[in-house]
Formats: sequence, C-alpha cells, structure tokens
Amino acid sequence: MLEGINETIKVQLDHRTIREFTEEAVPEAVSSQVMAAARQTASSTGMQACSIIKITDPELKKQLAQVCDQEYVGRAPELWIFVVDTRRNQEILKELERPTESAANMDKFFQGFTDACLMAQNVTLAVESLGMGAVYLGSILNDPVRTIELLKLPRLTFPVLGIAFGYPNQDPQLKPRMEMDVRVFENGYEVYDGEYLRRLQEYDEEMTTYYDLRESNRRSDSFTRQVGTKYAANNPRRAAMVRHIRNQGFDLRLED
Amino acid sequence: MLEGINETIKVQLDHRTIREFTEEAVPEAVSSQVMAAARQTASSTGMQACSIIKITDPELKKQLAQVCDQEYVGRAPELWIFVVDTRRNQEILKELERPTESAANMDKFFQGFTDACLMAQNVTLAVESLGMGAVYLGSILNDPVRTIELLKLPRLTFPVLGIAFGYPNQDPQLKPRMEMDVRVFENGYEVYDGEYLRRLQEYDEEMTTYYDLRESNRRSDSFTRQVGTKYAANNPRRAAMVRHIRNQGFDLRLED
Repeated sequence: MLEGINETIKVQLDHRTIREFTEEAVPEAVSSQVMAAARQTASSTGMQACSIIKITDPELKKQLAQVCDQEYVGRAPELWIFVVDTRRNQEILKELERPTESAANMDKFFQGFTDACLMAQNVTLAVESLGMGAVYLGSILNDPVRTIELLKLPRLTFPVLGIAFGYPNQDPQLKPRMEMDVRVFENGYEVYDGEYLRRLQEYDEEMTTYYDLRESNRRSDSFTRQVGTKYAANNPRRAAMVRHIRNQGFDLRLED
Repeated sequence: MLEGINETIKVQLDHRTIREFTEEAVPEAVSSQVMAAARQTASSTGMQACSIIKITDPELKKQLAQVCDQEYVGRAPELWIFVVDTRRNQEILKELERPTESAANMDKFFQGFTDACLMAQNVTLAVESLGMGAVYLGSILNDPVRTIELLKLPRLTFPVLGIAFGYPNQDPQLKPRMEMDVRVFENGYEVYDGEYLRRLQEYDEEMTTYYDLRESNRRSDSFTRQVGTKYAANNPRRAAMVRHIRNQGFDLRLED
C-alpha cells in the first residue's frame, strides 16, 4: 500500500496517538525544527492570531494533567498548549491609536481558533516525522477556568488544545477510521438517516478486532458503541463553553 | 538552513499560498492519496466529527467564488470544503435509541471544528508534498447563510474553511512570519504592552521588502499596517457568527 508514497504522506498514514514516552528529553536542535514548522504554518489573512505556551515547570505540568484527568500528561517530556490570541493584535491597534473593538469579535476568535489548530497539526506532523510521537489534549478544556488561570491567559486569549510529545515508549497498532463514503460528499451534503448503523457495520467489526487485539486496555467495543457512550455523555462545564469564551472578553453578539 | 532537514519539515518550511493553478486536472490516483492522509488525521476522542464537500460542479464553484469574493476560486481544479459534522453521530445515537441532545452542544461543535482544521492542514501538507499548491479559504464564511444554502448543509453541520488546490501556475516568495518570541511563552502568557510596534519593527521591515520585491500585487505595506487596516475592519455578518451557528441547531447555553 505504501509503495510509491512519499515520505510526508507515509508519516501521515502512520499516525498513531502516543501516550507513553521514554525519559529521553527532546534536544533543543530537534524542538527548534518543530517550532520552525509551526512558525511557517498558514494563518487567517496572515494575522498570526494564536500563541503557544510551553510547559516546562513540572508542578504546572502535573496541575494541567489533573485538568486533563490523564496522569501521563504530567510525565510527558514536552507539553505545548495552543491558544487563540487576538490580544496581541488588539494591543498593536492600541499602539497605532486605531479602534480596537474588532479584536474582540467572534469572527476574529474563530480565525484565531483555526490558526491554532492548523499550527497544532503542523507540530504533530513535524514531531512524527522526527521519530517522536504525540497526543492531542482536547481535555485541557475539561475545566476552562482552571486552565486559563494556570496559564495566566489574559482577556482575548483562549485555550484550544494541547500536544504532549516525546520519544515513544509504546508501539500501538493503527486505529481504523470509518470509510470516507459517509464523510465525503459531492457538491452538497447527503444524509443517510436510518442507514448509519448498517453502513458502519464493517467499520464496527474492524474496531472490535482492533480493541480485542491491542496490547493494553483491551476491551470489547466498537465505534457506534462509543458514540452511544462517549458522545452521549455531557460535561456541563464544556457544554457551556461559550460562557468561558465571553468571560475572556469576546463579544457573543447575535445581531449584525 | 535546510541541510539535515527531513522531507516533511522541508515541505512545511516551504509553505506558500498558491492562488493560480495550471489547467491540469488532479489525477484520481493523486487526490486519493490526499484523501487517505485526510482520513488518518487525529480526531477528538475518535469521534470523526467533520465532513468534506468536494465541489465538482463548475457553476457551484463560481457561486462559492462569489461568496469568497475571489475570482480564482471558480477556476481552481479542486475545491474541498471542510464542515463541522455532529449530525452523523446524532443520527447514530437516534438509531441506537439513545438521547441525542449532546450532539448539539457547543463542546461537540468545537470538537468538530478542531477535527475539520486538523484534517484541512493534513490535506494542505499532502497536497504540497505532491508538488501541488493550495490556498485556504476562510472567506467561505463571508456569508455563512449563503454557503450553508449552497452546500445544502443540514442542522448540526457548519462550514469551517475551504481549500482550493492544483498544480501551481505561480512561484511566489516565502512570506515572512513574525519572530516566535512574541508568540511563544514559557509556563504562562506574557504581555508586552506598549512594546509591540518596537518589537515588530524588524519584521515590519522584512514585510515591506517582501511586498516591494514580489512579482504581483506589489505595494508598500507592513505587518502592523495590515493589522491597522485588515484587523480593524469589521464584517458585521462574520462578527455575528454565533447566530449562524445557533441557527444550525447548536445550543449556545451560557449556564452549566
């Protein structure tokens, strides 16, 4: 399958989440390559409206691990948090003596959110291309107020996601993905109501085999079963996310 | 500088936005590699809550180009739109006879938004690694109502961004980025109020040289000047983005 595939796509196709790392530190010469890739990432209208907080303080790492409810986060060699940052451009507007209101609108928030995610994926790819492994931490949003406090995030900034990375101390199998025929449409969205369980039956079987055969945390599970448990679950603090966004100074206006 | 750098990071460091493409179609064997890379992208808790609309209808492409206010979009060989999709998992919950409310909360919206952006960056990287070029189109959100209508997006889906790609018919210079020392912080956000214009002076000079030397659309400009024009500008329709999100069925609750 990988014959004739270039190095970059090989890295992409080999993506696995790595949660256990060796104790080997990531050399500065290596992490600076990752940072260079992050820097060159595209950004909305070139406005570069995201920032990175690198966590090097072991105590702070453990506190974030508690928010994530993932013990291994406290032991990860590198932990980078990506944040929406429209504050820097607001301050530039202030220094230019221009009106600053636009920096607080939700359009700019979403541009910054997009910038942060694109940069995070470039970081993950760079990390993986260098023989390391990474895990995304959406779980920093389990308690947005606490994460904002821990990272000393001022108004007009907001946490998006974290990446922990280092040299892998595990070699998990590739996790199967659903067929793209239910995810990719031509010229307009197509609904398959009443057909999803049937259409995903083969994928569910693949996932059951994957969970059954893997080395750690083996269990009987499938994709649609996970939707029925994980996706149906409701974390009220996360469900009210827009309140935390508003509390960071963003303007949730509903009218043009 | 690129000595000893691997192929993937070379592709990342060589990122430029490409807006003009040759008329050469992207062969199926090539676009299927891009799609394979998209498919293997990480997703929040494995829930795969984004979808892609491929635009192949020339008339629809032109209509989207009007929303983007970018004529070249109508001529791009490939045009893929990435959308938040919590609807598929809602339908799975329905078929499982489980409560479906969670699929409408903003936590799930942001998970889907993140999934869409990570996938988009993987697509851009795969495209660039294959000798093609790409442009991000955040401008599909200039008129969210029109984009939703054109793509027939049902409730619990929402457009995030587009990517137009193909074989490049231009070879632009690398666009300089600001120094990461104002974007990367250790253990907590740092503010440099009153210092940004000074700290960005060298970058502004680099950008002025870049705009002065480039082949097309040459002009006198700098980064902070663009913040003063582009960033200060306010598109009211985009500023009220959360209204359009709510109108697609998402629950903007402010209370836990």
